[in-house]
Amino acid sequence: MNFTSDNITGASEKVLAAIIASNRGKATPYGKDEATLRAHAALDAFFGRKVTAFLLTTGTAANALACAAICPPWGTLLTHQESHVMEDECGAPEFFMAGAKITGLPGIGGKISPHTLRAYLEGDAQGANRPPVRGLSLSNGTEFGQVYTPGEVADLCALAHAHGVKVHMDGARFSNALVSLGCSPAALTWQAGVDVLSLGGTKNGCLMAEAVIFFDDALAQDFIFRRKRGGQTLSKARLIGAQFEAFLDQDHWRDLASHANAMAKRLADGLTSIPGLRLGWPCVMNEVFLILPAEGIDKLRAHGALFYEWSGHSLAPDHALQPGEAIIRLVTSFETRAEEVEALLTAARGMNAR
Amino acid sequence: MNFTSDNITGASEKVLAAIIASNRGKATPYGKDEATLRAHAALDAFFGRKVTAFLLTTGTAANALACAAICPPWGTLLTHQESHVMEDECGAPEFFMAGAKITGLPGIGGKISPHTLRAYLEGDAQGANRPPVRGLSLSNGTEFGQVYTPGEVADLCALAHAHGVKVHMDGARFSNALVSLGCSPAALTWQAGVDVLSLGGTKNGCLMAEAVIFFDDALAQDFIFRRKRGGQTLSKARLIGAQFEAFLDQDHWRDLASHANAMAKRLADGLTSIPGLRLGWPCVMNEVFLILPAEGIDKLRAHGALFYEWSGHSLAPDHALQPGEAIIRLVTSFETRAEEVEALLTAARGMNAR
Amino acid sequence: MNFTSDNITGASEKVLAAIIASNRGKATPYGKDEATLRAHAALDAFFGRKVTAFLLTTGTAANALACAAICPPWGTLLTHQESHVMEDECGAPEFFMAGAKITGLPGIGGKISPHTLRAYLEGDAQGANRPPVRGLSLSNGTEFGQVYTPGEVADLCALAHAHGVKVHMDGARFSNALVSLGCSPAALTWQAGVDVLSLGGTKNGCLMAEAVIFFDDALAQDFIFRRKRGGQTLSKARLIGAQFEAFLDQDHWRDLASHANAMAKRLADGLTSIPGLRLGWPCVMNEVFLILPAEGIDKLRAHGALFYEWSGHSLAPDHALQPGEAIIRLVTSFETRAEEVEALLTAARGMNAR
Amino acid sequence: MNFTSDNITGASEKVLAAIIASNRGKATPYGKDEATLRAHAALDAFFGRKVTAFLLTTGTAANALACAAICPPWGTLLTHQESHVMEDECGAPEFFMAGAKITGLPGIGGKISPHTLRAYLEGDAQGANRPPVRGLSLSNGTEFGQVYTPGEVADLCALAHAHGVKVHMDGARFSNALVSLGCSPAALTWQAGVDVLSLGGTKNGCLMAEAVIFFDDALAQDFIFRRKRGGQTLSKARLIGAQFEAFLDQDHWRDLASHANAMAKRLADGLTSIPGLRLGWPCVMNEVFLILPAEGIDKLRAHGALFYEWSGHSLAPDHALQPGEAIIRLVTSFETRAEEVEALLTAARGMNAR
Repeated sequence: MNFTSDNITGASEKVLAAIIASNRGKATPYGKDEATLRAHAALDAFFGRKVTAFLLTTGTAANALACAAICPPWGTLLTHQESHVMEDECGAPEFFMAGAKITGLPGIGGKISPHTLRAYLEGDAQGANRPPVRGLSLSNGTEFGQVYTPGEVADLCALAHAHGVKVHMDGARFSNALVSLGCSPAALTWQAGVDVLSLGGTKNGCLMAEAVIFFDDALAQDFIFRRKRGGQTLSKARLIGAQFEAFLDQDHWRDLASHANAMAKRLADGLTSIPGLRLGWPCVMNEVFLILPAEGIDKLRAHGALFYEWSGHSLAPDHALQPGEAIIRLVTSFETRAEEVEALLTAARGMNAR
Repeated sequence: MNFTSDNITGASEKVLAAIIASNRGKATPYGKDEATLRAHAALDAFFGRKVTAFLLTTGTAANALACAAICPPWGTLLTHQESHVMEDECGAPEFFMAGAKITGLPGIGGKISPHTLRAYLEGDAQGANRPPVRGLSLSNGTEFGQVYTPGEVADLCALAHAHGVKVHMDGARFSNALVSLGCSPAALTWQAGVDVLSLGGTKNGCLMAEAVIFFDDALAQDFIFRRKRGGQTLSKARLIGAQFEAFLDQDHWRDLASHANAMAKRLADGLTSIPGLRLGWPCVMNEVFLILPAEGIDKLRAHGALFYEWSGHSLAPDHALQPGEAIIRLVTSFETRAEEVEALLTAARGMNAR
Repeated sequence: MNFTSDNITGASEKVLAAIIASNRGKATPYGKDEATLRAHAALDAFFGRKVTAFLLTTGTAANALACAAICPPWGTLLTHQESHVMEDECGAPEFFMAGAKITGLPGIGGKISPHTLRAYLEGDAQGANRPPVRGLSLSNGTEFGQVYTPGEVADLCALAHAHGVKVHMDGARFSNALVSLGCSPAALTWQAGVDVLSLGGTKNGCLMAEAVIFFDDALAQDFIFRRKRGGQTLSKARLIGAQFEAFLDQDHWRDLASHANAMAKRLADGLTSIPGLRLGWPCVMNEVFLILPAEGIDKLRAHGALFYEWSGHSLAPDHALQPGEAIIRLVTSFETRAEEVEALLTAARGMNAR
Repeated sequence: MNFTSDNITGASEKVLAAIIASNRGKATPYGKDEATLRAHAALDAFFGRKVTAFLLTTGTAANALACAAICPPWGTLLTHQESHVMEDECGAPEFFMAGAKITGLPGIGGKISPHTLRAYLEGDAQGANRPPVRGLSLSNGTEFGQVYTPGEVADLCALAHAHGVKVHMDGARFSNALVSLGCSPAALTWQAGVDVLSLGGTKNGCLMAEAVIFFDDALAQDFIFRRKRGGQTLSKARLIGAQFEAFLDQDHWRDLASHANAMAKRLADGLTSIPGLRLGWPCVMNEVFLILPAEGIDKLRAHGALFYEWSGHSLAPDHALQPGEAIIRLVTSFETRAEEVEALLTAARGMNAR
């Protein structure tokens, strides 16, 4: 019953097979190999247009390099105050942006509202005392399992662009968001105005496969140097190319994410049927945020359940934690089995019994 | 006949099998998995002492992060003027060192002599006009296929330490150097005074496996944050852990490097037996630097040989290129077959025939 | 009636005379001149002990370089969420700290409470996902005209040090704080545990004179290189040295700050005697934060008063702005004349009259 | 007899008077004051066109910020291997360029020849292994007292621009170069293709007055933020504005530089008339580079002469130092008196007598 994260699995069988297959023979290094070239073609097909893509090794590097491409060292990057970029990358965005300022905005469920964004942009200081806002980074899905719809993304992008601000989307769980929304990759990104996307494969069936996707070619200018200088240019690049090729082939990503999302739904449905338990935010992807009596945490762990406690700062006011309550995160993956879900539900029912 | 580099192969069968085996089941992310823990134990055994090791994804990142650990942003790092750190990492060392200055020293075959180092250190400017020398980075083997002996390393380290300068060794081809010297990893590193090593697995049978090895624990302080902030902390860290485990198991690295070195030796012997051809530097590892009539380059390529032209700046004065001569690099790997070597020799003899 | 800031004046007559006097003759550059050496001696006397001081040109540079000396690039610096370091230096602290993260804490009147600091430090994330807290920057006086007492500083420093966190004090208005508290420079800094101070002369009678004062010599290590590399080492350093010498001579700083503080007190007393007006925070230094009906702003300006509107975020809950209210900042200086104060009071009374 | 540098003087009387005059009364801070506005107008007149100018405090900061405006963090800046940017700024250019690589080119007398520049640019590596060349920094006059003519500057700029490389001129001794060449500021900068100039006032009669002058407005974009973030935006900016105003008024700069150059000429003529002495490079500005028997150094110092030994690396081959020879730098300034020159000449004759 390990629900700590979707990064505790290996690769899917199909992705692993691709790694094995690509291992044979000589290949041109640094991304000129056949597997990588095919991955690039598959990315074009995935987005329904030609994109400028750079494959690399970690989501942290993808986000940090992508943010650096939209925000200069003397600029400000806006993001949710509890986003991965803000809280979980040990300052990598500040490092790759060479010291740009990151300012966090509030918002329920990790989502920034147009109202909040507009208020900030319109109130942004004149003069040279503050680094001008140049970038906006949105997580889709968010760190609280929520999704921005294409329409919501479009509203935020329009607002940003009107103020000379470029938009990055952190898509560490982009597959899960797509499955949740049932929309196309195009609709959720470039058609809505997104300038650059961190596309994550690692959390959804790859071993290590991340990409920075530019929809605005001017921003991709010089990125080849930025990637190399960032220590992210693999010599044996086929390792990532092969994974992306398999991940995108015949919508493999969708099968994987659909399973993960379905398992989370099953878990959420089961948990909310137990008296005294409720969700912090709706379960729409592969994460369940359960609000429970604080003493339940140890009880669940005593039953062998693994998970993290989570922050309740971005709960809606009418969902705020009450005294004695805590919130935990339960993440499902392409590998989560129904029995694991049932085992957790059984543990939760037992916990409640006491 | 692809002799361009030792990064054109996939992983060895044993390393690939380890990746496959490690893929099964759940594992704690970020380096707390079983494969990575075993790799750390294997590294301790390899070096004959407890070391503080950090696994990561590229040699560029390993070098850049290691240099940053020994040289502050306001310091100077000395290295050979044609080292990988100086010439081939697109400014990654400057980036990770947050703008430290890198100063190149001359030396035959990519090796810095104690005389050159002493002269520089003793003449180093007083006052605050120049960033003080704090780090020295040595490649072993060098970018010109040469090796520093344990004694040579010890002399340079003693000199450096006497001036408050820490020493980094770029070991992208550390296995090949060890095989060439027939010495132990300990003898070539910490016993000689090296403070931190970039240990490369990728060029010698891994797909992507690099490590920063600290022999001075004080320097490792905070490196966990530096690595994460550098975008080099894999969530599914078993991918690298498994490779290093297999790479070190039963001296697999030695078998691989021995083969590569032997193939280079065979190639060098064959080439130097052809009238009109000579070597730029002795062949002691897995690289052959051939000096040939410039027109031979096209002829070899016409026979299907792939390789790079190389710099002759660090040739010994009495080996300098003569008018009409060029120098090329031929690299062998664990996968190089004797037939490929013979094919190149045949092409070279044919070239000469004209 | 210009109350916009204390940086709109020139130098005091005494400071200007010192600049003139020091201009004569040849002087060793880069801080080895006589005037600078005397300034260093005067700083030792000022603090009642030997200090390691570095003179430089702007408060922004002083703060940014001082913060960089206590917080590494991969660390977190805590400061008030509306401090100068956080809001008004265009990212200079992030730049000089090479991308360290700055996290803002809340607090009434720009002051961080021990309770808030303790809660943050004790809740600070484990693992490598967040840059560890290494520095704390306190403004004394604050951006809202408040002062930390020596006891308050000592409590915060003790808390910080217990967590391995070094403490910086932004003393852009250090003179005004000292006069307000009636304590010694020693009591407010090193005796209370402060590790490094930005000592400002510019706002209190100098033309351009700032210093970074180290009370912990280990932190000053290499600062000579940091300052030069930061473009802050004047060749004709006597320009700053002479100012500091005059500024400190016979407590000239105290005379200047006492006048400024007294003028603010007179202004505050007058304003609060007018019905409908109140202060946002107590007037204890040389700044008055006036809460007034929003329409009063234009009326005051129509009478020729110059000032800035200010943020009310750090008002105490029971002092919060009511609908229709606004808050303005009025700053006095060593040059403010009683007639200016009276003119403003007259305007304010007229404003109120409608 | 202090010939160590031209930074050992105070301000000229006229410049000092301007500082005094500007000190009176209130002034808008951060460069919106009257003196600064007049200085900007004077700079336009000086260059014979509208320029975008930023006043700041040190030549190091001017150079570093200017270089950062033409070369991105992932680029290479070319400069002479012994330029001030390369050797004497403690890594400030690397810092402000956020880790860009600086590569030094050789050249006699500190001058880069078109041949050398072309060879480097045309041989510049393809691929992403090296940071692409984006900037060229020329010192005029050089660190060896030489000047580029307008025609030479134009040739280098044309070559640079043809390769997408922007050009910076370090004009720490720009006045002296102008006087030497007898040309206009326009002819030596924008008319020859220079994109950005560091204009120095400090070495030629100011106390502290430096400016970054953009001739390509696109490069000035965001420089207001860069300067502030670099800690270079003075609150009481009139201090620099007043100096530049006086410096440019009625060609005061020319009078000052003409005197300095004339004193150097007198010194050079006298020295070269002494048997056994010769110049390293022609004396065309305010510096004399004297080649003398090494034992002469102590003798001159025994007579009270102050100066620095200098590097002979960029001597022309046929001027190379012979065994037993040394080279010293003698700098004159606007304040150098004929008696000082004569005293040195007397000392030199006496030295020779022995």
